[in-house]
Amino acid sequence: MIYVVGIGPGSEAMMTQAAKDAIQNSDVIVGYKTYIKLIENLLTDTHDIVSNGMRGEVERCREAIRIARTGKTVAVISSGDAGIYGMAGLVYELSEGQDDIQIIPGVTASSASAAILGAPLMHDFCHISLSDLLTPIDTIMKRVRLAAEGDFVICFYNPKSHGRPTHIHDAIAAIRAIKGDQIVVGVVKDAGRDDESHYIFNIDSIDYDLIDMTSLVIVGNSNTKHEYHRMVTPRGYAL
Amino acid sequence: MIYVVGIGPGSEAMMTQAAKDAIQNSDVIVGYKTYIKLIENLLTDTHDIVSNGMRGEVERCREAIRIARTGKTVAVISSGDAGIYGMAGLVYELSEGQDDIQIIPGVTASSASAAILGAPLMHDFCHISLSDLLTPIDTIMKRVRLAAEGDFVICFYNPKSHGRPTHIHDAIAAIRAIKGDQIVVGVVKDAGRDDESHYIFNIDSIDYDLIDMTSLVIVGNSNTKHEYHRMVTPRGYAL
Repeated sequence: MIYVVGIGPGSEAMMTQAAKDAIQNSDVIVGYKTYIKLIENLLTDTHDIVSNGMRGEVERCREAIRIARTGKTVAVISSGDAGIYGMAGLVYELSEGQDDIQIIPGVTASSASAAILGAPLMHDFCHISLSDLLTPIDTIMKRVRLAAEGDFVICFYNPKSHGRPTHIHDAIAAIRAIKGDQIVVGVVKDAGRDDESHYIFNIDSIDYDLIDMTSLVIVGNSNTKHEYHRMVTPRGYAL
Repeated sequence: MIYVVGIGPGSEAMMTQAAKDAIQNSDVIVGYKTYIKLIENLLTDTHDIVSNGMRGEVERCREAIRIARTGKTVAVISSGDAGIYGMAGLVYELSEGQDDIQIIPGVTASSASAAILGAPLMHDFCHISLSDLLTPIDTIMKRVRLAAEGDFVICFYNPKSHGRPTHIHDAIAAIRAIKGDQIVVGVVKDAGRDDESHYIFNIDSIDYDLIDMTSLVIVGNSNTKHEYHRMVTPRGYAL
């Protein structure tokens, strides 16, 4: 049996009971070492831990599948929601029809970040990852432009990476070219963790130094307001 | 104090501890009566309940704000994530700068539904509500076409309503016209509740009678597969 568990943004308070139960009922916990640390309080002496570094997702999944086939119950840990840019797809792709797999959804980074910024996701929105490891940058930038033309609220996952620090700058420039300068942008770093921080900017005065690999960036739609230190998108256009 | 609480898709197992704590620590619970029923197990004799029907959101929020200003702690209940098409924005808009408001995020319908269908949200996706109560249908359909051109996975909230039963059919027709007939579509009804059901179709053979007001419809991207009774989107284009 494999549980693919979304542990939410970080704190135990933001985990679901189903996620906690899956971890506590598993023999083996498989995950990126940073995420294993976030669930330390739930682990006991009876748990075997298999952890490795950030780029080792495929290896971790193969190991989880191999262990589960020996009859053990395995929990694969994913931060946020296991089903959103998480480990769920990889486990399915690599397990080729194995049927004792259950995905436990969790609170994803955009939900956690929106709650910190105010209420930016009250109207149609999209998620775009700016990581070009597996997706051509042209495909990503085309999506950014289409999302801007559609006046979607846009949540950027992976806004910066070591190799490509300018993607978020390029994406924001493309949005400004289409929508102009009256757009609110929120940035949340380490949502739900001890050192959480957040900022709300107008699109023409973003401090890009405050955005890093683990930040989430939310670009408002044409109606999104910055009032009383909060970013709020009205729920309709006819209000 | 006002907590705006996302209770997740329905079952207590899918609620976060923070959501349960907020409900248990509140004096007054405000919500649509169907949602109050979902959290019955958490309520005690000390809770006052203020509930009304589906169209009464504005009224409910005003009442919550009024009660909180008397010094009581109020929990406003929202299904799924309070911050996604939920009550968070309305509470902020109507409270005009009140600062003792906290949004408790939850597992939204798309996360819960994705976990049931397989792993459709492994790549960029958007949320589009087909309710035209507060948004012109032309704006909605423009977004549908742009999302299709961008090859986003698309999650449709409110796919049908009493007054407008054909919106989901029209939206799917617009997507087919752009992307052709090799697209996987998942439908989930009552995710996380006792009578949950789900279906996976090819886009040219959807049974629209199985879609109702409370369903969530997820349209895959050009790479999304239907294999082993699951809907799975690969996490990249280069795999």
